[in-house]
Amino acid sequence: MKKIINDPNQVVGDMVRGLVAAYPDKLKQLPDTTVLANKQAPVTNKVGLVSGGGSGHEPAHAGYVGRGMLDAAVAGEVFTSPAPDQIFEAIKAVDGGAGVFLIVKNYTGDVLNFEMAAELAEAEGIEVEKVIVNDDVAVEESSTTTGRRGIAGTVFVHKLAGAKAEQGGSLEEVKAVAERAVDNVRSMGMALTPCTVPAAGTPSFQLGEDEMEIGIGIHGEAGIKRKKVTSADKIAEELTMKVLDDLDFTGDVAVMVNGLGSTPEMELYIVNNKVQALLAEKGVNIYKTFVGEYMTSLEMAGCSVTLLKLDDELKTLLDASSDAPAFRN
Amino acid sequence: MKKIINDPNQVVGDMVRGLVAAYPDKLKQLPDTTVLANKQAPVTNKVGLVSGGGSGHEPAHAGYVGRGMLDAAVAGEVFTSPAPDQIFEAIKAVDGGAGVFLIVKNYTGDVLNFEMAAELAEAEGIEVEKVIVNDDVAVEESSTTTGRRGIAGTVFVHKLAGAKAEQGGSLEEVKAVAERAVDNVRSMGMALTPCTVPAAGTPSFQLGEDEMEIGIGIHGEAGIKRKKVTSADKIAEELTMKVLDDLDFTGDVAVMVNGLGSTPEMELYIVNNKVQALLAEKGVNIYKTFVGEYMTSLEMAGCSVTLLKLDDELKTLLDASSDAPAFRN
Repeated sequence: MKKIINDPNQVVGDMVRGLVAAYPDKLKQLPDTTVLANKQAPVTNKVGLVSGGGSGHEPAHAGYVGRGMLDAAVAGEVFTSPAPDQIFEAIKAVDGGAGVFLIVKNYTGDVLNFEMAAELAEAEGIEVEKVIVNDDVAVEESSTTTGRRGIAGTVFVHKLAGAKAEQGGSLEEVKAVAERAVDNVRSMGMALTPCTVPAAGTPSFQLGEDEMEIGIGIHGEAGIKRKKVTSADKIAEELTMKVLDDLDFTGDVAVMVNGLGSTPEMELYIVNNKVQALLAEKGVNIYKTFVGEYMTSLEMAGCSVTLLKLDDELKTLLDASSDAPAFRN
Repeated sequence: MKKIINDPNQVVGDMVRGLVAAYPDKLKQLPDTTVLANKQAPVTNKVGLVSGGGSGHEPAHAGYVGRGMLDAAVAGEVFTSPAPDQIFEAIKAVDGGAGVFLIVKNYTGDVLNFEMAAELAEAEGIEVEKVIVNDDVAVEESSTTTGRRGIAGTVFVHKLAGAKAEQGGSLEEVKAVAERAVDNVRSMGMALTPCTVPAAGTPSFQLGEDEMEIGIGIHGEAGIKRKKVTSADKIAEELTMKVLDDLDFTGDVAVMVNGLGSTPEMELYIVNNKVQALLAEKGVNIYKTFVGEYMTSLEMAGCSVTLLKLDDELKTLLDASSDAPAFRN
């Protein structure tokens, strides 16, 4: 294992401190937690937004804390759900009296722990609602999930729900937007290489020198199939067509070509070239494109393609300004 | 070689098309070239800014084309200087009558080719000035350079000179800002792994399983030394101290912790944590921090640390808005 770290068991704490050190005007670390909150939180009468999950997906989720996106991100150990008490601290810290909304990627541990935290908060009189993101069309069930997994499409849910809350939307209105986002977002990924959790020290799986895995999860969970590495165009086509098969994307869409960690940006643009050509061929109108690393898997090489179907309100929310460090629109 | 590409000899063309497809409202490809220009270029009476160099450093340089930064970026083959005629096309495309300014990283091929293009342009009556960026403190000479190499600090030069041009600065004023930026910026990098140029198919050098190279260049050029991999804190200290030794950074500085391609953002924040602590210890005041992939080396694992000493005007220029896809401030 070659990594630029100190103690493999302290990577999350070191990272959280490094994040606050980078953006001291924007972020604060809640005492004795690995929760990063907007320095302005709580904002009176604004719905507070909390997300998070295992670390190793940076810039998700702390990079999306900022005005117009999340109010707090809870950083669990690498690829491990954060404990309920940490999530509870985040909820309390962002509650400005209008309730708190949780955006949870669909993994069994995350769902359970965010639900438990919600119960703790409700017992203290904080109104809490949530959405479960399950955008990954690759598999219907997995070792860590009941139903589909939540992957890069989660970033769109952060953006849309965050903008709605920033506009002064009520908890019910924020929830409605988040649910509409989840209903209209689909993703699929692939990998050329595995990644290594620092505390484990060895890769979580192996791929042959000429192999790739289609439909892989962001923690390296098994996908649809292993096959010989093909061209960027064929990879783009396989991911995009599977996404298109899952929902009628006629109309305006946002596209995200997301890098999983060690794929050069050059390659993401090569994939994007084909994705856009395919969408044009299928009569899908591209409203906006995002290419870069939005939801990673440590140093995994690979990419995912996400499509988000947009209505007029979702377009406005997608375009709304945000000062979250990692979101560019 | 595992890459998400089509023909290894067509990666630059495919990437350029993918960039235009991603940002059709912002970028245009000049016909029969691999030059990406701002869709609005040329802007009458604004100094036009051109940069570029070999590809493989994405988001540099095309990601920095936008209002308030570059007007055009010339994409050479991977790690290969673009030909003078391509640079000449870029100069002509961005000339709005106030002259054109070239930002060139200090590599022998780039310097020669940008100079030749400048001569071609001057012969057609376009006024051209340039700056050579040489921020890498690691080595004084290298196989590809007379004097120090230009690396991630170049992005700050793009930003500062671009903002000055956007403010309506004259060619001389833009040049003065760029030279002040170059005088006040220093960087140093390190790598854990090599990278593979697609057309070559094999890594450009080798590093042992427990080795890293300190002071490496962004094309894998030899650095100061190879040594056993140490902790993130020690790596951060070695890079930062060497930069601090080279210039008196007392006062306000901008910090960039740049990933070279496959280093997880988690690790960049871990490095940043130590960089900031060291700077605080040394009495250096951190005005703004940038953490992410700004100037990469394909899928090389590693990072660089850049410090930029700021005066009041440079702060204003650094903070000025830009819509370049890859710059966040």
